[in-house]
Amino acid sequence: MTHALDDAVALERTGADSFTGRTTAPYANMVGPYGGITAAVLQNAVLQHPDLLGDPLALTVNFAAAVADGQFDLTARAVRTNRSTQHWTIELAQEGQVAATATAVTATHREGWTDTEAVMPEVPEPHEVRLGDKPPMAWPNRYEMRFLQGPVLGTGAPGSSSQTTLWVRDDPPRPLDFVSLTAFCDVFFPRVFVRRARQMPIGTVSMTAYFHATAEELTRHGDDYLLGSVRGSAFQRGFYDHVGHLWGRDGTLLATTHQIVYYKG
Amino acid sequence: MTHALDDAVALERTGADSFTGRTTAPYANMVGPYGGITAAVLQNAVLQHPDLLGDPLALTVNFAAAVADGQFDLTARAVRTNRSTQHWTIELAQEGQVAATATAVTATHREGWTDTEAVMPEVPEPHEVRLGDKPPMAWPNRYEMRFLQGPVLGTGAPGSSSQTTLWVRDDPPRPLDFVSLTAFCDVFFPRVFVRRARQMPIGTVSMTAYFHATAEELTRHGDDYLLGSVRGSAFQRGFYDHVGHLWGRDGTLLATTHQIVYYKG
Repeated sequence: MTHALDDAVALERTGADSFTGRTTAPYANMVGPYGGITAAVLQNAVLQHPDLLGDPLALTVNFAAAVADGQFDLTARAVRTNRSTQHWTIELAQEGQVAATATAVTATHREGWTDTEAVMPEVPEPHEVRLGDKPPMAWPNRYEMRFLQGPVLGTGAPGSSSQTTLWVRDDPPRPLDFVSLTAFCDVFFPRVFVRRARQMPIGTVSMTAYFHATAEELTRHGDDYLLGSVRGSAFQRGFYDHVGHLWGRDGTLLATTHQIVYYKG
Repeated sequence: MTHALDDAVALERTGADSFTGRTTAPYANMVGPYGGITAAVLQNAVLQHPDLLGDPLALTVNFAAAVADGQFDLTARAVRTNRSTQHWTIELAQEGQVAATATAVTATHREGWTDTEAVMPEVPEPHEVRLGDKPPMAWPNRYEMRFLQGPVLGTGAPGSSSQTTLWVRDDPPRPLDFVSLTAFCDVFFPRVFVRRARQMPIGTVSMTAYFHATAEELTRHGDDYLLGSVRGSAFQRGFYDHVGHLWGRDGTLLATTHQIVYYKG
């Protein structure tokens, strides 16, 4: 049986640089699909492209409009290929209107000095941690989330920290790859809900992810839990940003991710 | 007299979405121009565009190839304009070859709940802090840099932290605006030089900046010092990332910025 994530990111190639895909109900958000699945679809277009050099290194997705339920058209174009890096521009459109723009860099890693300076939080094992409550949309049910720190969904009292740490994996579990890692980069509930202890209209405007792991490290990770940690920096007149880290169970920093989010209230 | 920064980012509009500019000697790097000035030029194309809505909110620049000394062609296109956000795709080319791709979001801020969660480091006043040594390229001489923490340029012993904090302003001083703030986002010397206490070939691959301040706050800042603080997360087989913050003298968080950088060694 196909995993719901593979179904949601499936693409049909329709030309040299063009693909079509469609939204799927299991990853539906309040309006349109979960942003993480849209990012994963854009990543997948690069990964499916026959010109691909190397593995994902950087991805920026700009959510220009809500993606409507149904079919969408993608273009993914390698605008510059160097010896060890390749630069991509990507666009998602529906009925000729741009709904998302993106740029990606893929690269071949080489041997060299390696060190992870960021420190993975010391936390209890996943089975010792409570499952979080889920909001009413479909997509959070595609993830098993176990929250270590931070209120989950705008419950509790307003606080001075938006820090949240959680164990997360696909539900049902699925072996990690660059497509699912991209989707995990958007898995954090809105920081403004945490700070204000209530929900309000929000929408991610732009999201960037840097991928630190090799395909081999992702394979070694398998379908185990990732540790996610995230914190907001500034909430300013309708927009806030956050910085997130995604760790493998063994302490490998898999990705760092940032986003800026619109909020109303 | 025109400030060197204004000279470096000057553009001539040549069509609905097209501009030309040229590199200038004062912002030269080892090979081609300082990445921060290239980012500022791309930002300036958006700011000069007659279709512009609002102020810069997010900018991602992908450095696809070294920019050669001389003229370059820019295209900046508003691909989607919403009620309060506008999405841009930008490209810098030389002789028909793409040298940089970028996306930008501009936005109109609205009134709303506002809080800066990130905390500005408590540091001595700029006049109490030593001026840093400069590397031999031209561009660092366009900045007055006073380093509070962290070795400057790969001197000293290798350490376990790449954290650097510095006061910085244009030299000569220039009133802050979104163009110069964009250039400041790339002002941090390479984190890998700090960690390894030596220099090696490096190049920024992709850089993202989120702008938290309004034009009015930038005007109020004037030509005063910014406080920059930056730290690397992961150095992995030829690529590392960092997260930086730029603060106004009064504690206003002006921008958060991230980049991923190629290094050899």
